[in-house]
Amino acid sequence: MSVELRRYIGEVPDFPKQGVRFRDITPLLRHPEALAASIELLAGLVERPSAVVAIESRGFIFGAGLALHWNVPFVPARKFGKLPGKTVREVYSLEYGEDSLEIHADALAPGDDVVIVDDLLATGGTARATVRLVERLGARVASLLFVIELTGLGGRERLAGREVHALMELPA
Amino acid sequence: MSVELRRYIGEVPDFPKQGVRFRDITPLLRHPEALAASIELLAGLVERPSAVVAIESRGFIFGAGLALHWNVPFVPARKFGKLPGKTVREVYSLEYGEDSLEIHADALAPGDDVVIVDDLLATGGTARATVRLVERLGARVASLLFVIELTGLGGRERLAGREVHALMELPA
Repeated sequence: MSVELRRYIGEVPDFPKQGVRFRDITPLLRHPEALAASIELLAGLVERPSAVVAIESRGFIFGAGLALHWNVPFVPARKFGKLPGKTVREVYSLEYGEDSLEIHADALAPGDDVVIVDDLLATGGTARATVRLVERLGARVASLLFVIELTGLGGRERLAGREVHALMELPA
Repeated sequence: MSVELRRYIGEVPDFPKQGVRFRDITPLLRHPEALAASIELLAGLVERPSAVVAIESRGFIFGAGLALHWNVPFVPARKFGKLPGKTVREVYSLEYGEDSLEIHADALAPGDDVVIVDDLLATGGTARATVRLVERLGARVASLLFVIELTGLGGRERLAGREVHALMELPA
């Protein structure tokens, strides 16, 4: 099945900059049977969690599908400054400089067993920041789910000790 | 039912700045029965379209639910520079300065009957830009769906002539 889904992933050379081979999920989103299959397959990889934490913004698409599928809370991990309540925040490195993610401080609690969702695992910086956010609230990260894992960028290593699943592995 | 859903909308004074009463949908997202009801109710307001166009980034959450519900394509309208393919772009005004949205040029075509989805209608600037994007590709905007309509900001007027639905109206 994962081989099937690969057909819906576009490849755009030199985006967003020279030398990067961008993986484009919009063909998958445009094929409802492929989007529905992605949600089903991701949901089948793990136990039903107590909440889904979805990473802004493409993670929101798959995270919403999974939260509705499992009938569990949807918790957004957002870029700094977007969430109106009291938050916890984690900084992560980009190639040049840094950025940060936040979740609401009351969004999770000890006893929560969380699945973190994003479309793509590359270097793992945002995913690792999200793991830290969840754990700072006393919740447990049961697993991390991705549609695509780009290999050779150290993402899985950066999430060492975590349960990580992706529907497909592609070379970076 | 819309009266019920209001209980899941938070109100945060002076966010993101002094004098603004921010409507927070994260309590709704955290209650799966409320999120599922929102999708059901939105879907019940209109005919099944040929595609859902969802506005980044909170619109992705409800747009994904609707695209899965209807089993139709999900087309993201994204901030400038995020989409890797050939795009069309529309600029819209902010209180200070301007911003722009894009969709992929091959995402829609004449004959498409589109529903545009976002969480909140305020001044209508981003929604109107999205209407223009859809129409520049020759598709028709069947309707615009919002969870919340803030009244008194001219949003509905700015979308004059369009079919606009919201699950609840709240004073700005």
